[in-house]
Amino acid sequence: MRDNESVIEGRNAVIEAFRSGREIDRLFIKDGLSDGQIQTIKREAKKKELRIDFVSKERLDQISQTGNHQGVIAYIAAYEYSELEEIFAIAETKGEDPFIFILDNIEDPHNLGAIIRTANMSGAHGVIIPKNRAVGLTSTVAKVSAGALNYTPVVRVTNISRTIEELKERGVWVACADMDGTIMYDLNLTGSIALVIGAEGSGVSRLVKEKCDYIASIPVKGDIDSLNASVAAGVMAYEIVRQRRAQAGAR
Amino acid sequence: MRDNESVIEGRNAVIEAFRSGREIDRLFIKDGLSDGQIQTIKREAKKKELRIDFVSKERLDQISQTGNHQGVIAYIAAYEYSELEEIFAIAETKGEDPFIFILDNIEDPHNLGAIIRTANMSGAHGVIIPKNRAVGLTSTVAKVSAGALNYTPVVRVTNISRTIEELKERGVWVACADMDGTIMYDLNLTGSIALVIGAEGSGVSRLVKEKCDYIASIPVKGDIDSLNASVAAGVMAYEIVRQRRAQAGAR
Repeated sequence: MRDNESVIEGRNAVIEAFRSGREIDRLFIKDGLSDGQIQTIKREAKKKELRIDFVSKERLDQISQTGNHQGVIAYIAAYEYSELEEIFAIAETKGEDPFIFILDNIEDPHNLGAIIRTANMSGAHGVIIPKNRAVGLTSTVAKVSAGALNYTPVVRVTNISRTIEELKERGVWVACADMDGTIMYDLNLTGSIALVIGAEGSGVSRLVKEKCDYIASIPVKGDIDSLNASVAAGVMAYEIVRQRRAQAGAR
Repeated sequence: MRDNESVIEGRNAVIEAFRSGREIDRLFIKDGLSDGQIQTIKREAKKKELRIDFVSKERLDQISQTGNHQGVIAYIAAYEYSELEEIFAIAETKGEDPFIFILDNIEDPHNLGAIIRTANMSGAHGVIIPKNRAVGLTSTVAKVSAGALNYTPVVRVTNISRTIEELKERGVWVACADMDGTIMYDLNLTGSIALVIGAEGSGVSRLVKEKCDYIASIPVKGDIDSLNASVAAGVMAYEIVRQRRAQAGAR
């Protein structure tokens, strides 16, 4: 799958796109900017022999899809979705047990972007999202991912339940994040693992939950009973990081 | 501090506002809605002898500040900021060591809302924000907090550094979340603690960082080097939860 074109907005996102070697088609910078990040972007553009279009704020506002361009917009060849095989290949290259995020219908591009960022930062080898209903790799997702989309493969599948079965056949344990499970600290989350995060509001769907090997809960210590989806993904992912680290240290 | 009036949008936020006993001035519901959550809201309104205005979608869109009202908008008396004393009082009532979030200039209302939600869920007793520059308790913050603002006191202070000194004098250890610190798993985060989370992009300011007792880092396992501010707050907060839980279990 490939979109025709994608727009990257904001300084960090554009710098990361350069650094990860993505092909930038056009680069717009607001007239008169000259701070450190802008200098970095100009240097990167020069290295790539890329012409910069210096334009007015009004022009940028017009191009902007997010309304939050910070004076910099780049058009890049759109993000390509990856194949499941690439996730396993990355894990193998790193000599690590596969660590995969599965997102069961995340609809908010800010959440999807933040979760892809978390997946990369926590050392996950890829993210699986469903083809229908969920949000895809829009420019908002790319921006919020803070460059992580350039490194972390995102795989779109038709049927999450079927993909979970495939992962299980390949020796991956599937942990679903949900309220009515075992406190995550009491589960063994080491080894090959896929972490399933549910949609904002409705959580992991029943059919998907039934396919999981276990249900992991974040302890509730307050008056409300859930976290934002991207925060929950981060808390769970880092419990996996902690357990893997403890196990490696104990060897 | 008190705003004149505040707008609560979305079903969960309105239900939570009712349940936590907040005074609702006016309630707007879109004509023709009758699902379960709307029934709950109608029941709550009846209990409080509150008149419901059934209006068109167009009217709601007009009133809406977030553009995401889900058919329900309530005007409530605005959120009051609390005093530092209330945070300590809540901890004492619960018989717990104080656990406080300090936000050093969070500017995005979605992040602030998600962090207040995380603070409540993770059992923190309150959140401290600076008076200037940072975002305050807007209706977006309230909505994103998913009701947590009704339970978790938010204190606005003029000078974060001075407040940190005051906390330290009262026996609270202050941990700053930053890249160049000790991996959080290797720190003792039990006991009275305040967790300092920096602004999106720039992180914790130098003056504030110098006041902290220690700097705690989230391990970097990927290619990018930071998490979204609200995700980082969640990951750190739950490491504190885990350590407190382990200590209680070990007693």
